[in-house]
Amino acid sequence: MPDEAKGVATAVKIDALAGAASRAATGAAQKLRIGIVGGTGYTGVELLRILARHPNADVRAITSRKEAGTPVAQMFPSLRRVYDLAFSDPADAGLAQCDVVFFATPHGVAMGEARELTDSGARIIDLAADFRLQDAAMFERWYKMPHACTDLLAESVYGLPEMNRDAIRKARIVGNPGCYPTTVQLGFLPLVEAGVVDASKLIADSKSGVSGAGRKAEASLLFAEASDNFSAYALSGHRHHPEIVQGLSRVTDAPVRVVFTPHLTPMIRGILSTLYAPLTRDVDVQALFEKRYAGEPFVDVMAAGAAPDTRSVRASNMLRIAVGRPADSDLVRVIVVMDNLVKGAAGQAVQNMNLMFGLAETAGLDAVAVLP
Amino acid sequence: MPDEAKGVATAVKIDALAGAASRAATGAAQKLRIGIVGGTGYTGVELLRILARHPNADVRAITSRKEAGTPVAQMFPSLRRVYDLAFSDPADAGLAQCDVVFFATPHGVAMGEARELTDSGARIIDLAADFRLQDAAMFERWYKMPHACTDLLAESVYGLPEMNRDAIRKARIVGNPGCYPTTVQLGFLPLVEAGVVDASKLIADSKSGVSGAGRKAEASLLFAEASDNFSAYALSGHRHHPEIVQGLSRVTDAPVRVVFTPHLTPMIRGILSTLYAPLTRDVDVQALFEKRYAGEPFVDVMAAGAAPDTRSVRASNMLRIAVGRPADSDLVRVIVVMDNLVKGAAGQAVQNMNLMFGLAETAGLDAVAVLP
Amino acid sequence: MPDEAKGVATAVKIDALAGAASRAATGAAQKLRIGIVGGTGYTGVELLRILARHPNADVRAITSRKEAGTPVAQMFPSLRRVYDLAFSDPADAGLAQCDVVFFATPHGVAMGEARELTDSGARIIDLAADFRLQDAAMFERWYKMPHACTDLLAESVYGLPEMNRDAIRKARIVGNPGCYPTTVQLGFLPLVEAGVVDASKLIADSKSGVSGAGRKAEASLLFAEASDNFSAYALSGHRHHPEIVQGLSRVTDAPVRVVFTPHLTPMIRGILSTLYAPLTRDVDVQALFEKRYAGEPFVDVMAAGAAPDTRSVRASNMLRIAVGRPADSDLVRVIVVMDNLVKGAAGQAVQNMNLMFGLAETAGLDAVAVLP
Amino acid sequence: MPDEAKGVATAVKIDALAGAASRAATGAAQKLRIGIVGGTGYTGVELLRILARHPNADVRAITSRKEAGTPVAQMFPSLRRVYDLAFSDPADAGLAQCDVVFFATPHGVAMGEARELTDSGARIIDLAADFRLQDAAMFERWYKMPHACTDLLAESVYGLPEMNRDAIRKARIVGNPGCYPTTVQLGFLPLVEAGVVDASKLIADSKSGVSGAGRKAEASLLFAEASDNFSAYALSGHRHHPEIVQGLSRVTDAPVRVVFTPHLTPMIRGILSTLYAPLTRDVDVQALFEKRYAGEPFVDVMAAGAAPDTRSVRASNMLRIAVGRPADSDLVRVIVVMDNLVKGAAGQAVQNMNLMFGLAETAGLDAVAVLP
Repeated sequence: MPDEAKGVATAVKIDALAGAASRAATGAAQKLRIGIVGGTGYTGVELLRILARHPNADVRAITSRKEAGTPVAQMFPSLRRVYDLAFSDPADAGLAQCDVVFFATPHGVAMGEARELTDSGARIIDLAADFRLQDAAMFERWYKMPHACTDLLAESVYGLPEMNRDAIRKARIVGNPGCYPTTVQLGFLPLVEAGVVDASKLIADSKSGVSGAGRKAEASLLFAEASDNFSAYALSGHRHHPEIVQGLSRVTDAPVRVVFTPHLTPMIRGILSTLYAPLTRDVDVQALFEKRYAGEPFVDVMAAGAAPDTRSVRASNMLRIAVGRPADSDLVRVIVVMDNLVKGAAGQAVQNMNLMFGLAETAGLDAVAVLP
Repeated sequence: MPDEAKGVATAVKIDALAGAASRAATGAAQKLRIGIVGGTGYTGVELLRILARHPNADVRAITSRKEAGTPVAQMFPSLRRVYDLAFSDPADAGLAQCDVVFFATPHGVAMGEARELTDSGARIIDLAADFRLQDAAMFERWYKMPHACTDLLAESVYGLPEMNRDAIRKARIVGNPGCYPTTVQLGFLPLVEAGVVDASKLIADSKSGVSGAGRKAEASLLFAEASDNFSAYALSGHRHHPEIVQGLSRVTDAPVRVVFTPHLTPMIRGILSTLYAPLTRDVDVQALFEKRYAGEPFVDVMAAGAAPDTRSVRASNMLRIAVGRPADSDLVRVIVVMDNLVKGAAGQAVQNMNLMFGLAETAGLDAVAVLP
Repeated sequence: MPDEAKGVATAVKIDALAGAASRAATGAAQKLRIGIVGGTGYTGVELLRILARHPNADVRAITSRKEAGTPVAQMFPSLRRVYDLAFSDPADAGLAQCDVVFFATPHGVAMGEARELTDSGARIIDLAADFRLQDAAMFERWYKMPHACTDLLAESVYGLPEMNRDAIRKARIVGNPGCYPTTVQLGFLPLVEAGVVDASKLIADSKSGVSGAGRKAEASLLFAEASDNFSAYALSGHRHHPEIVQGLSRVTDAPVRVVFTPHLTPMIRGILSTLYAPLTRDVDVQALFEKRYAGEPFVDVMAAGAAPDTRSVRASNMLRIAVGRPADSDLVRVIVVMDNLVKGAAGQAVQNMNLMFGLAETAGLDAVAVLP
Repeated sequence: MPDEAKGVATAVKIDALAGAASRAATGAAQKLRIGIVGGTGYTGVELLRILARHPNADVRAITSRKEAGTPVAQMFPSLRRVYDLAFSDPADAGLAQCDVVFFATPHGVAMGEARELTDSGARIIDLAADFRLQDAAMFERWYKMPHACTDLLAESVYGLPEMNRDAIRKARIVGNPGCYPTTVQLGFLPLVEAGVVDASKLIADSKSGVSGAGRKAEASLLFAEASDNFSAYALSGHRHHPEIVQGLSRVTDAPVRVVFTPHLTPMIRGILSTLYAPLTRDVDVQALFEKRYAGEPFVDVMAAGAAPDTRSVRASNMLRIAVGRPADSDLVRVIVVMDNLVKGAAGQAVQNMNLMFGLAETAGLDAVAVLP
C-alpha cells in the first residue's frame, strides 16, 4: 500500500536522539507517509510525540491555517530537536499523497475532506466525532450539523480495537472513539456481552483531567478556576452518551440505558470511570474480565481488590481495569483508568493505524507510564 | 453555664487585627472557655482558624503531648499574630475547667477522657469517631477497639444539626459526623425521609480532597504521589459506611443499603458526592429539597440544572446541593459539595458548639468561600 | 463625608450568615456607599468577598457592561446567600452617589471616569495601573496609551500604606499598587531607606500564582498548560518594573536599578519574592526590619532563619518577610510572601479605603490565613 | 567488558509491548547485566522506566531489604506488564555478577559496597552523594559521616558528561550529580570557563518540583502542605552548594562563590534555575553558549529571548537553556530547565552508563518530553 515513490513535500523528522541501534532497526522498516490536519491542539501534539518514536512513521505534513509557517517546535518547545517541520496550509500540504491522514480537528472538518482524500487513496483516522455515531440523525442531533457524507459514514468503522479489530484492519475511514466512551465501553463490555447485568440500569460516574476539554481558551478551564476544585458538568446530557449506548448495543439485544455523569478533575491527564451495574446472574466477574481481555496488548485486568490510579497509565497507551462486587449489594463495580490523550485519543489512533496497515499493533506504543 | 470566674491558665488570644468595631461588639459577648485536645492536625488548626474570629470563643488550651511548649504559631505560621498560645501537655491544660472541649485526636482518645471531663461539667465535641456509631459492637468491628464508655455513648448525640438539632442543644457529648457521611446523609435525607426512593439501592460515589486523610506522613499522600493523579480506595469497605447507613436508617423503616465508593482527588479541600437513587414515586425533587432545607443556614439547594463545584464552598461552612433527574432513567441524581475541613469537620463542630450553648447557630461561621 | 441620605439604587447585601452579635455591632457603624466598576475578574470577586464582612461597607453597585443584569452570585456561586446584587450597566449604577468607587478594570478605564466621579464627591481607588506611575510619559511608554487626566494623576496618591500612609488618608484618588511591586518595595524598603545597600544592584526574583494574570481566557493560563509547570516570563521587561523603581527612588537619592524576573507558578494565589542586594555597611538587618515595620498591622517580620511560605498568608491581608545574610557573601537576602489578590490587590485597596475614611485600618481585614 | 556468560539469577524483563521490529533490533544488541540497589524511591522507579526501553539493558536485580519478595509492579503498577521482577535482598541479588550497579539509595550506602563490587569487576554509578564531593573532609562536613573509601573516592569520576565526558568513559565509579548542581553548573559553565563573569558573585535562584525531595513520608511533602504553596528552604546552607562550587572551580582559577536559594514548587517534576552573574567583559553570550554546547545531545540552547518552561523537558533527558542580558544592568541572566528525575538523576545515570560501556550516548534516552 504505502508507496515510497509518491513523494510529498520536504518536511522531515530529525532525530538527534535516536541511538544507532534503533536507527539500524527502523532504517529497514516500512515507512508510512503521514499527514495530520489541525495539529495545534492536545491530540495533535500528542500524535507528534508518539509518531516521533514510531518505527514506521514518516510525518510529512501537519496543517494549521492559522499557524501556517510556524515551526511546530516553536509552538511546542518539547518538540525542539525532534521535528524540523512547520505547520502548513491544508491546501499546500500534499495530504492526498499521504498513506494516512489523521484529523485532530474540531467536529465537522473531517467529513468535509474525507471524500477527496479517500478518492486519492489515503486512509483516514478522525479523532473528532464525525465518524463515531453511525446514525446520521443522531450525529445531527448531538453535534448540531448535518452529516456531509452519509455514504462514507456507512462504510466507516468505529475504532475501538478490542471490539472491532477485524473491521478496523480493512477500513478506509476510522472514527476514533471519544475518551470517556473508551473507558465506559471497555468497562461494561464483558458484562453486557455475557448478558450477566441489567443493561438498562447502567451508571457511569466518570472523572476526567482537564486536557480532555482540549486546548480551548475558556475561562472555566483556567488554572485559577480548575485547580483545587472539582465539579460535575454536562448534567443535561453529554455527546459521549449516545456513543456509549451505540457501542454497548452492538453486543446485546437487550435495551441499553446508561446514566452518565462526567466530572472535571484537577489533573492534566487521566480518566477514571467508576461503573455500576446490577448483576442478574451470579458469576465470577474477575474470571469473566480476564478471559475477555486475555491477549489484549493494551487492556490490563488487575487483580481482585486492586484500586487502579490514573498515574499508572500516564502518557502510556495502557488501560487498566479492576472489577469487584461491593459488600451487601447486587451490583458489580468496575473501575477503569486510562490516559485520555493516549488510549483515549492519539494512542488509540496510532493503534488503529497499526492495524490498518498490518504493522505490529503495539508499534510505537510501548512507552512505559510516567510515574511519579 | 459558662462561668467566667473559673479561671484556667494564661493562654490568651491576641488579636492585633480585629478592628475597633468588632472589638466593641465582642467585648460584651458571652465568652466560652474552650480546650482543644490534639491540635497538630488539620482539624485542630482549622478549629483555631475559625475560633479566632468567633465572637464568643476564648481558646484557653490546645494540647499535644509531643509538641508541649511549642507555640502553635510556630507550627502553623498562618496563626502568627493571631494566637499567643503554646501547645500544652494534656495533664496541665486545665481542660476540666473549660466549658467545652473539642477532641481533634485519633479515634479512641475522646472516649478515654470523656467521663472525667463530663463529671467536671465540661461538654465534649469529638471530631473523631468515638461517638458517631451508637452501636458499640459496630464501633468495635470497624475501629478494631472496644468502646471505653458505652453508657456515655448511649447518651451522646450525633452532631448533624440538620437531622438532630434539638438533641444537640441539650447534649453533653456530641459525636461530630465524618466528612463523607455529612454529604451523603444530607444528600439522601429528603428522599429517604419522604419515602420516594428505594433505600436499599443507594449509590454514593464520593470524591475527596487530600486533607480528608489528615496530616499523616504516609507515602500515598505525598504531593508527588497524589498530584496529577486520581484513584478510588477502600473498595472493600470504609469506616464511614456504617455511619451513613445508621443515619439514613433513622428516618425510614425500610432497609437501607448503600454502595459507597470514595476517591482521592488532587485538591487540598473539598468533597463532592454524586448520589444515585431509584425513584419509586413521581415527585418534584427540586421542591422536596427546597422545602426540606428551607431555613437551614448552611445548606444551599441550588437551582435545577446547577452543577456545584467545591471551590464555591472552600473555607466556608456552606454545603450546596443540586438535585436532578437524568434523562432516560428512573434515577434521581444528587450532587453535594462541601469543604471537608469546615462543614465536614471543624465548622460543623463549631456549629454544634453554638447550638449546645444557645449562641447564634451561625456565630463565627459567616466567612465567605474563598474563590478563586 | 459619607451621607446616608444620598440614596442610590436598591441593591442590598443580604447576610443570612451573620450572627446576631455581629449584626448588633455593625448596625451602629458608619456605612460607606461603595461602587465597584468591572467586577467580573478576580480582583472584583475578591473585593466582594472582603467587603461582605466589612462592618462599614455597603456595596451599592457592581458594574459590568457585558454581564448587566446577571446576579453576581450566578457568576460566582461562592457569593450565593451573601449578595443579592446583580451586575449593572455603568451608566445606571449611580456611581456618582457613592462615597468610594473601586476600579477593578483593565488599565485605562479609571482615568477616563475619574474626573466625573471626583467632581461628584466620590473618591476613587484604582486597582489597575492608571494612577500608579506618577510620570505620564512613563505610563504612556509602558501601557501604550496616553494618560487621560494628568492633573488628577498629579494629585493622586500611590496606595502603599507602609510608605505613604498620611498622604493616603487625604487622597481623593489612590493608585493601588501592583502585586509584584508590593512585595519588592516592602522587601527592599528598609534597606534602601537606611542606605545600607547598593541600590543600583538590586535583584528581584519573583514567583506568582496564576491568578495574578487575571481571569483572562488565554491558552497559556489554562490548567493543562500551567499545572505541573514552571516558567519565567516577561524577560524583556515587565510593567511592574518602573513602578518598583519609582517607589524605591522616593526613599533614596542614590540611583535605583533593579533586575526583575517574574515567574509563573502552578498555584492559584500567592507571591514569593526572593530579593538580593549587596550590603555596603555591616548592619543588623533583622533589627533594621523589625524596627521599620514595628506597629504595621499587615507586615510581619519573621524570626531570623525563618522560611516563609505563601500558604501562611493565603486569603489574608498579611505580608510576611524574612531577612538574612547568606554565608560567604556580601549580599542580604530578603524573602517576602503575600496573597496577590489580598495584600497584592483587593485587601490593600480596602486598607486604603479604611485610611481614606478614618476607619480602623484593619476593619474587614482580620481574616486568618487559610491553611491548609 | 560485559560478559554474557557470567549468568546471574532469573529475573527477566518481559515486554508484552515491544513491537516486532524493535525486538529484532535489540535482539542482536549487546546487553548489559544491570543491578539496582535500593529501588523503592523515585530514582529507582525512574531507572526502571528508562531501562525498560533501553536496547542494551538487561535489568537482573533490584534490591530492597524491606520489600524483598514484593514484585516491583505491585509497588509501582505503572510497571505491570513491563517487569516480571521482584525486589530481592541485596545479599541474594548477584550484584557482583552484574556489569554495572546503580545505587538509588540514601547517602552512605554506595561507599560501603563499592570495594567489593569493583573488585568483582562491576562498575558503579551512585545516584546519591557518596562520590560527588572529591574532598572527603567536605563530604564529612555536609553529610555528617566519615567517607568509607577515600581511595575509591579519589579514582571516582563526577558524572557530568558535558564537563567530564572522557573521564567518565574510563571510570569504574561515577558519582552522578545532584539535580540542582546539574542545572547550576551547566548554566554558569560557559561564562565561568570563558572568564567573562565575576565568579565570586554568582547567584542561583532555583525552583524544584517536590519529587526532588524523594519518596519520603514527611509532613512537609504532603499534598495538603505542598500544593498551592511555594516556599524557600535550606536558607542556612544546602548540600548541593559545595558540589556547585567544586564543579565551577574546576574550570577557573578565580575564586568561586555562589549564593544558592532553593525553593519548593508545587509540581511533581522539574527544576528551573534562574542564574545571575556580573559580566566583566562585553561578550555575545548567546554565541558563547551556542558554541560551548554545540553537538551536545542533551543541552538545548534556545533562541535569544526564549523563556523555557519545565514541561518542555518533562520525562525527557533534555536540558534547555536561555541566556540574556536584562536591560539597564551589567548582569547576565541564565535560565535553565530540566526534569530533576531524568537529566537530574536517572537519565543522566543512564547517559553515564552509555559512555562507560561505549554505547551510543543517547541509547534509551530518546523519549520525547510529555506535553501537556
